[in-house]
Amino acid sequence: MPCRSSDELNTLVAKAKKCAKSGKVADYIPALGKANQDDLSIAIHYPDGRCISAGCIEKRFTLQSISKVICLALVLIDRGSNYVFEHVGMEPTGDPFNSIAKLETMSPSKPLNPMINAGALVVTHLIKGNSVEERFQRLLSFIHELTNDSTINYCEEVARSEFETAHLNRALCYFLKQHNIIEEDVEQLMELYTKQCAIQMNVLDLARIGLVFALDGVDPLSGKQIMPPDVARICKTFMVTCGMYNASGEFAIKIGIPSKSGVSGGIMGAVPGKFGIGIFGPSLDEKGNSIAGIKLLELLSKNYKLSMF
Amino acid sequence: MPCRSSDELNTLVAKAKKCAKSGKVADYIPALGKANQDDLSIAIHYPDGRCISAGCIEKRFTLQSISKVICLALVLIDRGSNYVFEHVGMEPTGDPFNSIAKLETMSPSKPLNPMINAGALVVTHLIKGNSVEERFQRLLSFIHELTNDSTINYCEEVARSEFETAHLNRALCYFLKQHNIIEEDVEQLMELYTKQCAIQMNVLDLARIGLVFALDGVDPLSGKQIMPPDVARICKTFMVTCGMYNASGEFAIKIGIPSKSGVSGGIMGAVPGKFGIGIFGPSLDEKGNSIAGIKLLELLSKNYKLSMF
Amino acid sequence: MPCRSSDELNTLVAKAKKCAKSGKVADYIPALGKANQDDLSIAIHYPDGRCISAGCIEKRFTLQSISKVICLALVLIDRGSNYVFEHVGMEPTGDPFNSIAKLETMSPSKPLNPMINAGALVVTHLIKGNSVEERFQRLLSFIHELTNDSTINYCEEVARSEFETAHLNRALCYFLKQHNIIEEDVEQLMELYTKQCAIQMNVLDLARIGLVFALDGVDPLSGKQIMPPDVARICKTFMVTCGMYNASGEFAIKIGIPSKSGVSGGIMGAVPGKFGIGIFGPSLDEKGNSIAGIKLLELLSKNYKLSMF
Amino acid sequence: MPCRSSDELNTLVAKAKKCAKSGKVADYIPALGKANQDDLSIAIHYPDGRCISAGCIEKRFTLQSISKVICLALVLIDRGSNYVFEHVGMEPTGDPFNSIAKLETMSPSKPLNPMINAGALVVTHLIKGNSVEERFQRLLSFIHELTNDSTINYCEEVARSEFETAHLNRALCYFLKQHNIIEEDVEQLMELYTKQCAIQMNVLDLARIGLVFALDGVDPLSGKQIMPPDVARICKTFMVTCGMYNASGEFAIKIGIPSKSGVSGGIMGAVPGKFGIGIFGPSLDEKGNSIAGIKLLELLSKNYKLSMF
Repeated sequence: MPCRSSDELNTLVAKAKKCAKSGKVADYIPALGKANQDDLSIAIHYPDGRCISAGCIEKRFTLQSISKVICLALVLIDRGSNYVFEHVGMEPTGDPFNSIAKLETMSPSKPLNPMINAGALVVTHLIKGNSVEERFQRLLSFIHELTNDSTINYCEEVARSEFETAHLNRALCYFLKQHNIIEEDVEQLMELYTKQCAIQMNVLDLARIGLVFALDGVDPLSGKQIMPPDVARICKTFMVTCGMYNASGEFAIKIGIPSKSGVSGGIMGAVPGKFGIGIFGPSLDEKGNSIAGIKLLELLSKNYKLSMF
Repeated sequence: MPCRSSDELNTLVAKAKKCAKSGKVADYIPALGKANQDDLSIAIHYPDGRCISAGCIEKRFTLQSISKVICLALVLIDRGSNYVFEHVGMEPTGDPFNSIAKLETMSPSKPLNPMINAGALVVTHLIKGNSVEERFQRLLSFIHELTNDSTINYCEEVARSEFETAHLNRALCYFLKQHNIIEEDVEQLMELYTKQCAIQMNVLDLARIGLVFALDGVDPLSGKQIMPPDVARICKTFMVTCGMYNASGEFAIKIGIPSKSGVSGGIMGAVPGKFGIGIFGPSLDEKGNSIAGIKLLELLSKNYKLSMF
Repeated sequence: MPCRSSDELNTLVAKAKKCAKSGKVADYIPALGKANQDDLSIAIHYPDGRCISAGCIEKRFTLQSISKVICLALVLIDRGSNYVFEHVGMEPTGDPFNSIAKLETMSPSKPLNPMINAGALVVTHLIKGNSVEERFQRLLSFIHELTNDSTINYCEEVARSEFETAHLNRALCYFLKQHNIIEEDVEQLMELYTKQCAIQMNVLDLARIGLVFALDGVDPLSGKQIMPPDVARICKTFMVTCGMYNASGEFAIKIGIPSKSGVSGGIMGAVPGKFGIGIFGPSLDEKGNSIAGIKLLELLSKNYKLSMF
Repeated sequence: MPCRSSDELNTLVAKAKKCAKSGKVADYIPALGKANQDDLSIAIHYPDGRCISAGCIEKRFTLQSISKVICLALVLIDRGSNYVFEHVGMEPTGDPFNSIAKLETMSPSKPLNPMINAGALVVTHLIKGNSVEERFQRLLSFIHELTNDSTINYCEEVARSEFETAHLNRALCYFLKQHNIIEEDVEQLMELYTKQCAIQMNVLDLARIGLVFALDGVDPLSGKQIMPPDVARICKTFMVTCGMYNASGEFAIKIGIPSKSGVSGGIMGAVPGKFGIGIFGPSLDEKGNSIAGIKLLELLSKNYKLSMF
């Protein structure tokens, strides 16, 4: 049985932490740039309710791209997979997450998958509701249910900052709007998307969401099926094929745990049937993944044979 | 000396007109879709003031992409070529005029030339003035001077319609803004750009502008140097290397007259030292050029040996 | 426990077979074009030695791209993963398997993964030996061990035919040679590669190889570790992320079984810890995968919950 | 009348020479790497037989890409423009001269123009004759006629060296062969092409060829029409739109003289109706053009107003 003591975890964290120096904190908006490059924390949440952790686990950080997989789950529940996959593809791309070129060179201009920005914008566009506020609250309620924590909210400073600077995402939106893949007003979608990305939580919360995915959608506490098993399965598959930006292939080979990262330095992992993982380490490698977080997952995967493959 | 009688011109127009049937009128906005597919008119303006013409020469049409070369002239006058070419390149692309892919694959993300949409948006961005209104009036005044006709204005219906639907241009703008090539508010730039594209004139006016370029910037009537010879020369060069969208190379080989086309079906030609040409034929080929207009220019070029090469 | 009776399997085959009509047999070389579009056969090989099957299981077919994953296993054993991944990447591409464009646009020009042709050519290049003959025999011996059948050989007609027509693969090789990723003589490599692709076997053999991968490299009969567990794991990971050409993402979501297909219509599957699958159905979909074979795997995966995710 | 005295020319050469230091001699084969970075020579050939020159004009160098435009003229004479342009396009590309990506992304895979390597290989493929030897002799005879010098031949060392290392050109050939644009044996075509590129001459010869193009195909001495005016015109057009690699647009704007460069450092210019230019300056800029050669042409164009535009 994998790692059950915080002592073991502390040792691994100390080891993984060393490589944080060779990465770089995201600084495209001031709020992210303030993060401490040396931070590294982890929580592991087991089905029986036990949770072990290491590092500064109270610290909240914004989900950024991790929100893409949670939002996808919500939209799959609401709309069904057939409808969703008429609007976004299922293939990994090999390109950076913010790339626009394939939208032009492929026909039709459907984003290749929901984990690249173009695809994630389409998924967020599909959140049901009559207003940005209502749609955002639906996503937030879903996250409250997943984390069993109704205090979770978004960081206004980060959301505002991203809203003001996300011109590349606007370019993607207008391109998609030109091709009738997105229909709503772009500024409205940007407001919703930047709020979504700015949702804040700590590694304990994140590990709990990972656990729900690991348990095929079942709440570990109440036993309630929060999302259908198929939705959890689809999300975990995307986490393997394109969850770690254009380093997903390497991550699958070296680590083999369905995971989703964000540029704030968070990583959510779901070891099928076993446990959920939440990691925060803001120092990023050149592809935008937490450099110490990946190292830590590599140590865990090797030590406890966690690869699915 | 080339074609001096309207009779000759009428014969050529009748011949060229036949291929209008194999083209298609632009219909991405309703106002353009209303054009008559079979229309074909031409005016040739000589330095001595004489003008011969054929077809329905009173009909006004919007400049669309033809405005790109006029706007470039204005901005070159205002800013100097060094400054302008820090913001936009000088190379033909081989890609469609509205392509975004090269902005991503090339580094830096400077548009390759001012005749593709990305480059034209940068040039329009460089028009001096304190407001959209002031900047647009500067461009309009310049056109009044070039045509010696101060009644020329823009078509509100077309401008509004393009403003509402130009999502691809917005995508280009936001991409450029992300890379700090465009700084102003995108909606403001779009307002200015769509008004610029919606400026209306007839083939007589267009031929007169072509003549000013042909005469190295000199007004044929007053002898005034409206633009420096270098500016006229740069514009004519772009008209050869990238004036006819991604059919410019073929056009240079088959016809060899510096020309600029627009999706409304207009073509402006400048035969260096000799005369200016204005053409209107709204039926387009698949690359967006007036199909009968190109045929007519081919006949003219062959009959009167007008190729520069 | 999954499907244990041939009756069940026959029913599924009959159901899946229907969609063979909407596909097309590969015909770029005559030998492949002779295949019967309606064929569909399957063998499932269990660790205890039992094997169930349906369809014409004696029919031999060439491995084509399925050989890529077997060759990768051999080369990983011989050279170690560090060495191999200096020469070929680990990322899915989103492009067709024979694409050359990314070799030019990415820097360095290392093929993105070993399942696209460019990457597979690099892997074959890495097979140890002093001559094409010696290297090919090493690969064949490895396959004899995996299948426990030393009569397996290659089809000379197919190998010769592919050798004569594989100009696109030659283009890839020369491009890679220009960038010093491949060093040997291209014709020599082409001889080795086309022989490798022309290795023939039936679905029983293929299922047995799949089983060795499923059992982490252990021979089901002798218990011998034919390949290290890490090699089997790496291969299965690639089968998930890029085993089904640029339909791998969709296949992972809908079916979730590590699999590798070839344009002859073969598919090899490895259900981790459980069983190996061999399928032959030469009617292909537009991406080059067996159309009825995929349908059959989908039915199996749904009925017996075989997805890894 | 432009520059008639060698004194003027010597002054300009001395001035232009200074920038040779900031360039780099081609060194992809040893024979080219031996060139003297500081060399710069020019010859200007007038219709009346007069020729002025500066620098070491006796030095021979290989034509490299300059041969593309001469070969194009020969093939246009032999096959007619309709036939030729069924096999190669007329559009500039914006990509480097050795790029392969557009062959894949455009449909059909016809090279965009005859001045990029892919297109030049197609043109060389079209040289008539029953053997490489016979076809090469046809090209050589044509060059003897153009230069009025029957001693011109190719450099065996350079040809052999290029033949051995031209893997990228082989990649292009095989790609084109896969798409049935090239039919002959690739090694045979490579032999012919590398010999063509290795044809040697000095700047006096080169200026004389430029003059024939400038005079619409007429031999300045005998008055004989060596090539039809249309062929000369087409060649000059390509020299403007794509003669200077992917710096052609800038060159057209700044200099405006139809020109073709080669990586040996040669540039051939044709000032329509006026004179031919031959330049040799082996220090190259990053796009592969003679850095001092371009500077020299810029000085000439500005001083004597030589731009066509």
